[in-house]
This record gives sequence, structure tokens and C-alpha cells, in this order.
Amino acid sequence: VTTGDIGPKIGYNNMDNGYCSFNHVWIPRRNMAMRFAVVDEQGQYSKKRTTGSSSTAAADDSAAAKVAYITMMQVRAMICSSASTYLAMACTIVLRYSAVRHQGYDGNGTTEVPVLDYTQQQYRLLPLLAASYGFHFTGQYLNRRLRTVEGNLLNGTAHKVQVTDVHATSSALKSYMTTFTADGMEECRKACGGHGFLLSSGLPELYTTYLQNPTVEGDNHMLPQQVIKVLLKLVAVVRRGGGEEYESCDSYGLVPFLRQIISGKSSNNRASDATSLDSILDAFAYRAARLLESVATLLQSQIRNGVSQHDAWNHCLVEMARASKSYAQYLILRIYIQDGTQNPSLHVQAPEVNVLTDMARLLALYWMVQDSGDFLEDGYMKSMDWARKALLVSLSTVRPNAVPLVDAWDFSDFRLKSTLGRFDGNVYEAIMDATQREPLNRSDPGPAYEPHLKRLIVGGVGAARRSRL
Amino acid sequence: VTTGDIGPKIGYNNMDNGYCSFNHVWIPRRNMAMRFAVVDEQGQYSKKRTTGSSSTAAADDSAAAKVAYITMMQVRAMICSSASTYLAMACTIVLRYSAVRHQGYDGNGTTEVPVLDYTQQQYRLLPLLAASYGFHFTGQYLNRRLRTVEGNLLNGTAHKVQVTDVHATSSALKSYMTTFTADGMEECRKACGGHGFLLSSGLPELYTTYLQNPTVEGDNHMLPQQVIKVLLKLVAVVRRGGGEEYESCDSYGLVPFLRQIISGKSSNNRASDATSLDSILDAFAYRAARLLESVATLLQSQIRNGVSQHDAWNHCLVEMARASKSYAQYLILRIYIQDGTQNPSLHVQAPEVNVLTDMARLLALYWMVQDSGDFLEDGYMKSMDWARKALLVSLSTVRPNAVPLVDAWDFSDFRLKSTLGRFDGNVYEAIMDATQREPLNRSDPGPAYEPHLKRLIVGGVGAARRSRL
Repeated sequence: VTTGDIGPKIGYNNMDNGYCSFNHVWIPRRNMAMRFAVVDEQGQYSKKRTTGSSSTAAADDSAAAKVAYITMMQVRAMICSSASTYLAMACTIVLRYSAVRHQGYDGNGTTEVPVLDYTQQQYRLLPLLAASYGFHFTGQYLNRRLRTVEGNLLNGTAHKVQVTDVHATSSALKSYMTTFTADGMEECRKACGGHGFLLSSGLPELYTTYLQNPTVEGDNHMLPQQVIKVLLKLVAVVRRGGGEEYESCDSYGLVPFLRQIISGKSSNNRASDATSLDSILDAFAYRAARLLESVATLLQSQIRNGVSQHDAWNHCLVEMARASKSYAQYLILRIYIQDGTQNPSLHVQAPEVNVLTDMARLLALYWMVQDSGDFLEDGYMKSMDWARKALLVSLSTVRPNAVPLVDAWDFSDFRLKSTLGRFDGNVYEAIMDATQREPLNRSDPGPAYEPHLKRLIVGGVGAARRSRL
Repeated sequence: VTTGDIGPKIGYNNMDNGYCSFNHVWIPRRNMAMRFAVVDEQGQYSKKRTTGSSSTAAADDSAAAKVAYITMMQVRAMICSSASTYLAMACTIVLRYSAVRHQGYDGNGTTEVPVLDYTQQQYRLLPLLAASYGFHFTGQYLNRRLRTVEGNLLNGTAHKVQVTDVHATSSALKSYMTTFTADGMEECRKACGGHGFLLSSGLPELYTTYLQNPTVEGDNHMLPQQVIKVLLKLVAVVRRGGGEEYESCDSYGLVPFLRQIISGKSSNNRASDATSLDSILDAFAYRAARLLESVATLLQSQIRNGVSQHDAWNHCLVEMARASKSYAQYLILRIYIQDGTQNPSLHVQAPEVNVLTDMARLLALYWMVQDSGDFLEDGYMKSMDWARKALLVSLSTVRPNAVPLVDAWDFSDFRLKSTLGRFDGNVYEAIMDATQREPLNRSDPGPAYEPHLKRLIVGGVGAARRSRL
């Protein structure tokens, strides 16, 4: 047995990732956790069968494997929840700093402006704040959903499409949310300007530690294939006139739009100034359905043209990634609107619901403007000017709540470890304080003065006086 | 005088950035470089006048300031050139690794596939490779341009619009190229999967060291204001029927499109399957002109509605960033096509020109697909399907040249310092070799065995034998 440490990484260095290789090694069979599969004394591996009726997935030989697979999905759900936390921490630092940091003067030329009052800074940061809340509801939802499906599997009432559906959901969300969060955290760091470089800002450590998430537990660029593999079956079912068996599934929201697209009635009756949350959500569902259906069509046309299954699949990967991302955005917005603004279990009052509604709208408009081509391409929308205007309005609506909204996460200064993100806003004192801990700053003049610089400065440090300058 | 080190940063830590503050300190006037401005013995500051005829910018009192300003632009030009080098280094590492790393099986199920043969990996990386070459020509072009303008300023033949034009060019390019390069380098790191985390891959150090570039010498989110301030004057000139005085300027390429847009003939006669480089370049010029003109219109409508100059400007910042980015993409593609594929001074032969043409097309299509909404929105193009199809073709055209193209940069292994990007491709040996330098791996079993683990393992390490398992 050879073991070792893999060496230093870009971040997450408190985790001692290692390697290990086995050469002619026997491992005691009792070292295996044998809840769903066993190895007998002769070394034979077999799956255990769970109990259940014959009409459900649990009766299937692979039910045990499915339950085991739930564990992997649970890790993905945990990753989705932590995306919210990390993004919220980065937002807390940058939004507090952006409220303290002043730059440039307002119209009268005398009052300095907090950088958070510039629309460009708002455009960079407030959608991230909105996402941190949306991701919170999404992470909670995904955990609930997995518990339900696992319970159904164990008691034998799970329908097979439910299991694959939650696999698609967790894959799409993990892939998209961690990509968005990693990029968003780096945007937070950059939005602190030069001070975002300082390790004492807390952002470099936070960001680089987060960076494992887009890669682990299914690389973000591999997972879309898993998502599309599942959703292509839905397209096939809808094409055959079915779809109702997906009623309890996340992907059921695509069914009416898939029907519409397949029947060729795709581009009718769209309002191009749809600012209600419901019609915006419809636009996202329609777009996901359209991109999914076009992957199905592209794949079929490749195979019809004699391309091998492998090459056809490879040909469609870029479009699969696009469809998976659009599905994730649709799911997040749906959950945000349902659980953040309509779910009475939150026990929030109307003002909180209004604030969450503003943020859900901001995030939706931001995503729409970012990928405007997807909404314009088949004429579903005629213009994006209304969305850009509505986005600016949304930014100014969310702006006054920005600092309270990050305070509401209640991260302690101890946890943030950031000179820029302090609750008291005393940023500059904190930065100077942090520099005093540097070994180089222990003596004045610095340690290089005596051995090297002294002999180069005529008369020594402080020698220049006001004589003949 | 108080001085000190600012402390550790996310990268570029071999540069000892410091702070310094002065309290009642006199600095000898001879310490000032006095080529363009002087301080006399009474402490009076004045600018020196350069020689020149009265009809040119050099005769202006601020000519000296303009020449001094050239220095700042030269730093930006240097930054643009280095964007190419850094992106090329990251591409070298990831493309060599992607050719060595195999994952999954091809159609017959027996041969493992190099990850670079997946279209998704190509889509992530080959546009970056194409950009690294395009940025090379752009950096060289910008340096030439600055030398010309500086020469004209010094000999008094510079036209005022030439100076502001090159300011807009250098600002737009610095802002866009360093944003693209920083994001692209991180994409290269992520595209190495788990191995991209290792410091021994070389990518974390390369990337974090590069990260100062989007922030220094004009933050990338501030510079677009400089670009638009200059270009808005061009819009005003064209609206008044002028524009010919910009003939020697980079922004002159926008003039015919601005005229067309202002005269209201914007959306006629567009081929939606324009795959020739010239018509693609026209599309980028048209889009930059359209977004610029719409910033001008938005700004005016705000002021007409009684909004203050400050608030109106603030209202337009997001659209300014969009217009500046589209202008930068247009300039880069124009220079790529001219200097990379049509400039005889390169002394390249037809095969090289073909390869560069393929890459310029790939980059243009990639950018077009990324921002498809900009090209669709006013009906300039009817669809983007043709561009997505052409992009896939471009990827497969560039793919066979990918490794030779990074080899052509001729970075030594010593310079890349990367286990993944070695010229000989012996990636896995290099990774294991690097781990052997870790202090934790010096002894076997590791240093925690004797003091801690030994007493927890019955019989000690290696005690489990094949008896009664």
C-alpha cells in the first residue's frame, strides 16, 4: 500500500487530499459498509433487494443501487446549499465595502458618492445578492425533494421517472449553481478594486477554497449530459402524446411548452413587455423546452444522416450544456418565486415578501438580458429594451435593501475574517491594522535598511532637510 | 515618512507593494523628472511647452500633458501584449494536457478518447487559443499606433482627434482583453479537472499572478466611460454630417455604420448566413455603432427629461460597458484579420495564413454566439443557427492544429513550470514526481504514524493478512 499527500492546491489546503495505490492487497470484507450490497466469504459481490410492490421502482433489481445513488445526489444538494452560503459571504464583504467606499462626486461636485450608488457596481453585485437568496431556497427545496424520493424508494412507492427526474434536477442545479457562484465570488473580489487583492480582505481565501466545487462530484461540464439524457426521454414521451406520468416531477413544468413547440404553435401570443413574474417564468420554461427539443432534433438528424451514436452525441455537447443551463435557471426561478414569495411556511410578512419578489425579478431580468439571444431567436420576444429598462428599475428598487439584506445573513466578523466586510464599516483602520502584523513592518526603517540601503542614502534616512533644495 | 508593506495578496506576491504616507515632508525639487513640467526654486509648478505649428494639437498648452498621458497608454499597450502571452501560456498547458488525458470510449467501446476530441472541451478552449493569437497582433498594433501618435505629437503634426482616438482604443482594449484573459485562464485551469487544482499544474500561480491586470491602470469597469466619452463626440460629428477628419483613426471604421443607423437605413440587406470574414467583421462594426448610437440617444433622452448630467451619465453606465466591449471585439477582429491574415510584413506562407484565418473566424463566431442577442435584436440577423453550425465546423478545423499552435509559442518547460503542460507529455510521471517533494511524503508510513496512529491500528501497519477475513 502506497499513500501520500497530493501536494499544495489553489485552495482548500486544510483538506489533506491524498493518493493511494494497492498492489496485491487483501481488504477484509467486513471493512465494506454492507447495507445495500454484500461480499460473502467466498468473495462474491451481490446487491441486496429492498422490499416493495412489483409496480414500483423499488422492486427493480437496481433499486438498491438507486438508493445508494441518492447519497451522491445528497452530496450535490449539500453543494447547492453551500453555494448560497459562499455567495452570501462574498456579497456581504463586497456590499458592505461598496457602501463605505466613496469615489467621485455627485452632481453638485462636493459630495463623494458611495460606489454602490453607481449603476455599474449595482449591475455587477445586486444580481449576485439576489441569487444568494434564490440559491438558499433552491438548496432547501432540493434537500426536501431528495428526502421524499428516498422515502418513496425505501417504502416502495417511488415511480421510476421520479428518481431519474431528481437526478436531472440535482445535476443541472449543481452544475449551474456552482459555476455561477465561483464566477460571482470572483466578481465580488474584483468589485473591491485594489483592496480585493489583499488576503486580509478575506475574499482570496474564500474564493480559492470554493473553487473545488465546480469540479468535484461531477464536473460542471460533464453533468449536462446526465441532465439531457433524462430529459430527452421526456421529449420522446411528449412526442408520443404522453407526459402526465411526470406530474410529480420537476420537469413537468416543461410539458405544456414542449407540447406547444412540438405542435408547431411556438411563437404566438407573446407579450414583449412581460414584467409579471409569472410571464417571465413562462419565458424561462419555454426557452428551456425549446433548447431541449432542439437538442433532440439535432441528435436525431445526426443519426438519420448516418453518424454513429457516439459521434452524434459528441456533436450535440455544446447545445446540451446550453439546454441544461437554461433548465437550471428555470428551476431556480420557479423555486425562488414559489418558496421565497408564495410559501406560507416561511412565516414572513408582506414587506419581506415584497423584498424577495423584487430580488427574484431582478435575477430573472438579469439572466434574461445576459442571454437575450435565447429569448429573441425564434421570435418569442421581439425586443429586449423593456427588459434592460426594467432591470435598471429593479436595481434601484433593491439598492436600499442591499446592506440590510447581507446583514440579515448574520455572518460574524470572526467567520468572514475580512478587513473590508466588517459589520462596523471601519474598513481603512482594519486594513492598516492588518498590515501591522506583517514581519516586514515590525521595524522602522525596515529590515533591509541596515545591511543594504543605509550606505546608499547620503547622510542616512531622514537626512534631507529644508536647506538648498 | 511612514512606509510599509501592504501584506500578502491573492497573487503577484514577488512584487512588494507598499504604502507610504508623508507628514510635513519636503521633497527636493530635483527629485522630479522635469521633461514636460518643472518646479522652480520658489516652488512654482508649470508645464513646459513643446514646439509645433499653431494648427496642431502640439501647439495646445496641454500638449505636454498629452505626451505625458501617452506613457499611461503605453502601459496599457504593454498590458494588452502581455494578455496574449499569459493566455498563450495557459492554453499551452491545458491543450497539451487535453491531448494526453483520455476519458471515455469511442464508438467501438475499446479506444479511450483524448478529452480534446470532445466538442465541449474544444468549445471551452479553442476560442481561447484563437484569442491568444489575435491578442498578439492587437498588442503589436497598439504599440505601433502609440509610437506614431507620440511622434506626431512631438513633431507637431498630430491631429487632436488622433490622440483621443488612441486613448479610446487603448482603454477599450485594455478593459476587454484583460477581462477575457483572466476569465479564460481560469477556464483553462477548470478544464484540467481535478489536476488543475494542483499548484504543480502551474495554472494557479499563473492565474492569480495575472489577476492584478483587470484592476490596475484603469479598472476594467471604469475604462468604458473613457471610451464612450471619446466616441460620443464621433457620434455628434457624424450626426452633423461630418466624420472625414477621423480618417486616420481606429474609430473611423464605425463611421459608415453610424451614418446608416442615423439615416434610419439600419436593418436592410443583411445576409443571415454571412460566413465570409468581411461580412462577419461588418456585423461587429454595425453592432458597435448601434450600441454606441443607442448610448448617445439614451443619454440625451435622460437630459431632455430633466435628469442632471451626473445622474444621466450614471443611468447609462451599464450600456456604456456593453458598447465599449463591442467596440473592443470589433477592433481585435479587424486587427486580427488585417495583420494576421493580410499583412505581408509577417512573411508567412499560405498555410500559415489559412490557419490564422480559421482561428480569426472561430473567434468571431464564438463571440457572436456568446452575445447572439446583440446581433438579433434589431433584426440585423434573423437567426443564429448558421453561426452555431459554422462554429462547430470551425472547432473541427482548428482542432488538428491545436497542439502545434501552442508549441509554436515555444514556451520552455522551465518557464511554464507545469506538470500538466510538459512538452514531452509525460504528465502522470511528472505529477507523482512533484508529490515526492512534499515534506509529508518523506517517510513511509507518514510522520503522524508513530506518535498517533500506531496505537490505534491493531498489530501495526501491514498487520492484516489473508487469514480469516
